Amino acid sequence: MAGSVLGEVFKVMTWGESHGAGLGVVVDGCPAGLALSEADIQAFLDRRKPGETKYSTPRKEGDKVRILSGTFEGKTTGTPISLMVENTSQRSGDYSEIAQYYRPGHADYTFDAKYGFRDYRGGGRSSGRETIGRVAAGAIASRILEQLGITITAYTKQIGPYVCREECMDPKNVEKSPLRMPDLAVSEQAEEYLSGKMKEMDSVGGVVECVISGVPAGIGEPVFGKLDAKLAGNIVSIGAVKGVEIGAGFAVARMTGSENNDNFYMDSEGRVKKATNFAGGILGGISDGDDIVIRAAFKPTPSIFQTQKTVNRKGEDIEIQIKGRHDPVIMPRAVVVVETMAALTLVDSLFVGMTSRMDRIRDFYSDMR
Amino acid sequence: MAGSVLGEVFKVMTWGESHGAGLGVVVDGCPAGLALSEADIQAFLDRRKPGETKYSTPRKEGDKVRILSGTFEGKTTGTPISLMVENTSQRSGDYSEIAQYYRPGHADYTFDAKYGFRDYRGGGRSSGRETIGRVAAGAIASRILEQLGITITAYTKQIGPYVCREECMDPKNVEKSPLRMPDLAVSEQAEEYLSGKMKEMDSVGGVVECVISGVPAGIGEPVFGKLDAKLAGNIVSIGAVKGVEIGAGFAVARMTGSENNDNFYMDSEGRVKKATNFAGGILGGISDGDDIVIRAAFKPTPSIFQTQKTVNRKGEDIEIQIKGRHDPVIMPRAVVVVETMAALTLVDSLFVGMTSRMDRIRDFYSDMR
Amino acid sequence: MAGSVLGEVFKVMTWGESHGAGLGVVVDGCPAGLALSEADIQAFLDRRKPGETKYSTPRKEGDKVRILSGTFEGKTTGTPISLMVENTSQRSGDYSEIAQYYRPGHADYTFDAKYGFRDYRGGGRSSGRETIGRVAAGAIASRILEQLGITITAYTKQIGPYVCREECMDPKNVEKSPLRMPDLAVSEQAEEYLSGKMKEMDSVGGVVECVISGVPAGIGEPVFGKLDAKLAGNIVSIGAVKGVEIGAGFAVARMTGSENNDNFYMDSEGRVKKATNFAGGILGGISDGDDIVIRAAFKPTPSIFQTQKTVNRKGEDIEIQIKGRHDPVIMPRAVVVVETMAALTLVDSLFVGMTSRMDRIRDFYSDMR
Amino acid sequence: MAGSVLGEVFKVMTWGESHGAGLGVVVDGCPAGLALSEADIQAFLDRRKPGETKYSTPRKEGDKVRILSGTFEGKTTGTPISLMVENTSQRSGDYSEIAQYYRPGHADYTFDAKYGFRDYRGGGRSSGRETIGRVAAGAIASRILEQLGITITAYTKQIGPYVCREECMDPKNVEKSPLRMPDLAVSEQAEEYLSGKMKEMDSVGGVVECVISGVPAGIGEPVFGKLDAKLAGNIVSIGAVKGVEIGAGFAVARMTGSENNDNFYMDSEGRVKKATNFAGGILGGISDGDDIVIRAAFKPTPSIFQTQKTVNRKGEDIEIQIKGRHDPVIMPRAVVVVETMAALTLVDSLFVGMTSRMDRIRDFYSDMR
Repeated sequence: MAGSVLGEVFKVMTWGESHGAGLGVVVDGCPAGLALSEADIQAFLDRRKPGETKYSTPRKEGDKVRILSGTFEGKTTGTPISLMVENTSQRSGDYSEIAQYYRPGHADYTFDAKYGFRDYRGGGRSSGRETIGRVAAGAIASRILEQLGITITAYTKQIGPYVCREECMDPKNVEKSPLRMPDLAVSEQAEEYLSGKMKEMDSVGGVVECVISGVPAGIGEPVFGKLDAKLAGNIVSIGAVKGVEIGAGFAVARMTGSENNDNFYMDSEGRVKKATNFAGGILGGISDGDDIVIRAAFKPTPSIFQTQKTVNRKGEDIEIQIKGRHDPVIMPRAVVVVETMAALTLVDSLFVGMTSRMDRIRDFYSDMR
Repeated sequence: MAGSVLGEVFKVMTWGESHGAGLGVVVDGCPAGLALSEADIQAFLDRRKPGETKYSTPRKEGDKVRILSGTFEGKTTGTPISLMVENTSQRSGDYSEIAQYYRPGHADYTFDAKYGFRDYRGGGRSSGRETIGRVAAGAIASRILEQLGITITAYTKQIGPYVCREECMDPKNVEKSPLRMPDLAVSEQAEEYLSGKMKEMDSVGGVVECVISGVPAGIGEPVFGKLDAKLAGNIVSIGAVKGVEIGAGFAVARMTGSENNDNFYMDSEGRVKKATNFAGGILGGISDGDDIVIRAAFKPTPSIFQTQKTVNRKGEDIEIQIKGRHDPVIMPRAVVVVETMAALTLVDSLFVGMTSRMDRIRDFYSDMR
Repeated sequence: MAGSVLGEVFKVMTWGESHGAGLGVVVDGCPAGLALSEADIQAFLDRRKPGETKYSTPRKEGDKVRILSGTFEGKTTGTPISLMVENTSQRSGDYSEIAQYYRPGHADYTFDAKYGFRDYRGGGRSSGRETIGRVAAGAIASRILEQLGITITAYTKQIGPYVCREECMDPKNVEKSPLRMPDLAVSEQAEEYLSGKMKEMDSVGGVVECVISGVPAGIGEPVFGKLDAKLAGNIVSIGAVKGVEIGAGFAVARMTGSENNDNFYMDSEGRVKKATNFAGGILGGISDGDDIVIRAAFKPTPSIFQTQKTVNRKGEDIEIQIKGRHDPVIMPRAVVVVETMAALTLVDSLFVGMTSRMDRIRDFYSDMR
Repeated sequence: MAGSVLGEVFKVMTWGESHGAGLGVVVDGCPAGLALSEADIQAFLDRRKPGETKYSTPRKEGDKVRILSGTFEGKTTGTPISLMVENTSQRSGDYSEIAQYYRPGHADYTFDAKYGFRDYRGGGRSSGRETIGRVAAGAIASRILEQLGITITAYTKQIGPYVCREECMDPKNVEKSPLRMPDLAVSEQAEEYLSGKMKEMDSVGGVVECVISGVPAGIGEPVFGKLDAKLAGNIVSIGAVKGVEIGAGFAVARMTGSENNDNFYMDSEGRVKKATNFAGGILGGISDGDDIVIRAAFKPTPSIFQTQKTVNRKGEDIEIQIKGRHDPVIMPRAVVVVETMAALTLVDSLFVGMTSRMDRIRDFYSDMR
């Protein structure tokens, strides 16, 4: 397992480099009979596309997805779905220089240490373009969740010191903000902050928050297969993520049990509810029916245009100045990556979870006869 | 996969409930020829044992481990190692009451939602005793890492508002503090804070930090198999963990690229080093040769003795008062759990990583002939 | 993965050596709510027990199974089920001699080649006692299949040149034959043949056939996950199996398409049926609703009492005479091993198969709310 | 896991339908630094190509492979290798009729039973074209084995009643026979037999044998991960295979222990050898250093041009006559499929096997520093 496979039952394998022929993913384990078109997937890819605002790289990437297998007459057939996006905007010349040295904050050095050499063009496999496979597969997972009444919404919660206020976040505002910050007043402040850092040829970090609604209670496995463990691991696997929180997250360190425990009560429809949601919708690794809330900290883009100190492959200390086209802020484009990683995680957990009770399995198979 | 299996090549499967016959783990994939005794494993289990200080439950748990298979004449044979700890200190009577209701902050409700019923005695499978299997398997992983010159040290970094000062943390102090806080002055303050909360029949949260030294550069897989992703997922799988950070963690949200990028330089022995370690020893998911630094936020123990509101299985709002023996603070005993989860993750990544280069595989097998 | 883990969703990990503390298995992925007692499992283990007829080793093995976890009040809880059989009839002295040489037909040499040394007592992990873990886990799988209306019956089809006649095989006769051959006349001939070979201090081979009834059409995955591929692989994993056939098996090599194709027809209840079953109940790797028929060829027990030529660990040609207690024929005791391996395979395929259609998943989860 | 993923460490995921955009495979876990070109893979694909002799379908399939990722400057980079073959010779019209009924011996009925509907064009995913992904991935595995001094040779051993004579099989003759039978005299007889059956609008079955040379002793895992179990399972996963044998195979049923045991002896170079090879190079699931010999029984092509009885989707008994272009014999084209499935299996086992000894792991990582 060299790292590009995800999932136990709903399995995806992504492939592709920044400057190769293309990028893609194969999904094995998608159920038959799901309506699926290229447009369904394109809609997700378009949200991660660069070049749409002044805060993302001016590279024009067409990123048109093709479905190569696994559908017939507009529906999935149950066999592997192969998705591909061709690389069309390659300027390999831009990158020839970086072949010789290790960019700070990038995987150049570690790829060399691991593999002995690397495809240096645009970061190769460690490029942000690697997320195309995740998003394309996650689009399918999202279509499945839609059928089950589950929705996932992510947005930029924080950029530098600017944090959206809980009471001012309307999900409808996300797409109104060029930074995908639902608190539009804070978004404006963050834009100003970002513009300042861009002038200084610097980049900024931030936090993406993701809310999953409609998950029935009982999803997730105990011990290593906890739903929060799977979500955390998969979201940290997104490049640039340096931390992840569920529910109250790191704030629990300063809380007491009496503050942090969510009391249960019966709602008017006779359902078990929690008075608060510090747990973030997961107890003992298993969903409790409440919104699942997860946050990821993104480091500032390592590609900055300031002069930086580093070393070259010959083992000499040098100074470099990175060229090319790079996002000064990742979060707005990463929002859809977080959403789709959550979707992939959740579909797999839902599928595994179908076998947790003997009576339900018996009903399932007696219906089938 | 119902959640109790971990690892791709170094595989462990844990089992056991708080009040069943015992708890244990089977390890498949441990190499042959490793010296291993019950004492090696017992040393790790003893560090998670309760009843040693006033801050842990007064339950006496013998927790004596037996090696049931996989060793011969003091060495591992390469076949599965089965480890078992018998449960000896069961007072099932204490728990009969909780069969009927859902304790806030616990997995009672979610287990019922998932499985239709649950072994309520002492939390059953969701009890903290579940970590015995993790620690026992992780002890073996730690023995392997020792052979490879890799060490793992975890400690309590924070309890409530009391945070160890970077400059005052001596790893040798960890065992001198009843809270396993290496900054002894802060540890004393935290003890006072904790005592106060205990009097209020409350519990406290905190942070455990873990440092892994000696990992060669090049360990971890790109994309989903990133070393930080695996560490994060596996550490969040520890009950009560609500957040995890690598290196600078959530602090990166407020940093700029120029602040957060770790510059490379050549050290006097001709090795590539980083001037700082905001990355926490991992770049692009692959180790960079530096210390790997990871932190986990633990929520306060949900079992508190105050009156709490909740619901019972009949669907009625009720008030409860939890009895029994419960830790008011988890971190001191969780330190070894974090260490062993890190060890399990790392051994698996090291083993998978042996196949990353064709020349090394060729050498390996030509040596073998 | 060092080989002792089986299954994608219904996962088992076996452990134990012939002369260690015991043998066992952990099952992760057993649904909650299945009635399960130690007696249920013991019934299967008793069928593989030696010492019951003159054709099996006179060793007395108690082989009493204990359930260590995963059940509560007589039902499975959905958490890992740990099963253990203690070794009680160990005479390690018998085996000290074989430490120094490689028995022909055994794994002594290959274990040494792989691991550098081996637990030589009774064959260690490569002993036939290793099947205890398989049978114990398979007993649980069989209980699940029972709930789904699926039955598995295996029996000795052939011993040496003596082959049961299709028209004379009544499953009710299996337990009447000491060789578990349902054609009792042929069984008697085979007994005579076997007695002759025993007098010559030799052993005999044979074939076990296994019929699985009640599997609905549609189970199994295309390509690598074909039901027959999984069955074949898992049955060949039983020690001593050197070949496996599905349906007509090797006879297809001499058949033409017009002979081998099973024509479909509609039965009186409006169901799709096949006029013949050369396919053995599986088409394109997916069950067709017909009986699944599979056969395994077992080599004669390699432990024979004649003088044999071999080499020792010092690299010298030597002559040996094996002592101890060994079955002159494996098939009668292997019947239950084949059955349980089939059961383990089938349960896993049934569980994976629950996610093959979107409409069924939607129904499943809408029922769950 | 919906069936299209293979391998534990060297992982492949195939995709594609007979009449979709194309077919392909992604390989994750190929080590970096292996020289690999499209020509290397094409050479294998050309051997499974139809249209080359009168015994294969006259369809012209270009089957040109493209490497879409995972190589750089002619060498693998360690990241996923995506391979694709576009479908160019589609005549979907030929197949519209079969949408309505179930062809005997095909997976039409079982796909419908499993998924509710199917891509009926050319058999969709159950077409023999599915093997393109296997062969392409297996070509990479073969390149790896070449580096390790391991060779794999398969050929047609038997067609109908015509069986190659052990003493008359020269591997160099394989490509001289249009049936890939190395006993050229028997090949001619088989051709005559086949021509006769073709005139009768019928098809024939047979056996493919595969010999793997150069595998060091010690490869394969005990219990479920036995090398023969993996080989058997993976070879049965090839469409049309109904049986598989290792070494003496089903002949062991009639042998005694004294006949079947392979005696060990020391050869002149001081190596442990076996006087015979009834074991087929594998003892206790682990390679013994001898040639690994495996045979697969292929059923006659189910697509025959005679009138056949079957049912349609409306549930009516009907008579059909299959049209289109179909091979009257599969073995000659299947030879390379068997070889590549063996290669995929073996590479995975070799990679997993690198972690079987602590001393070797220690050496490996101390070399790495």
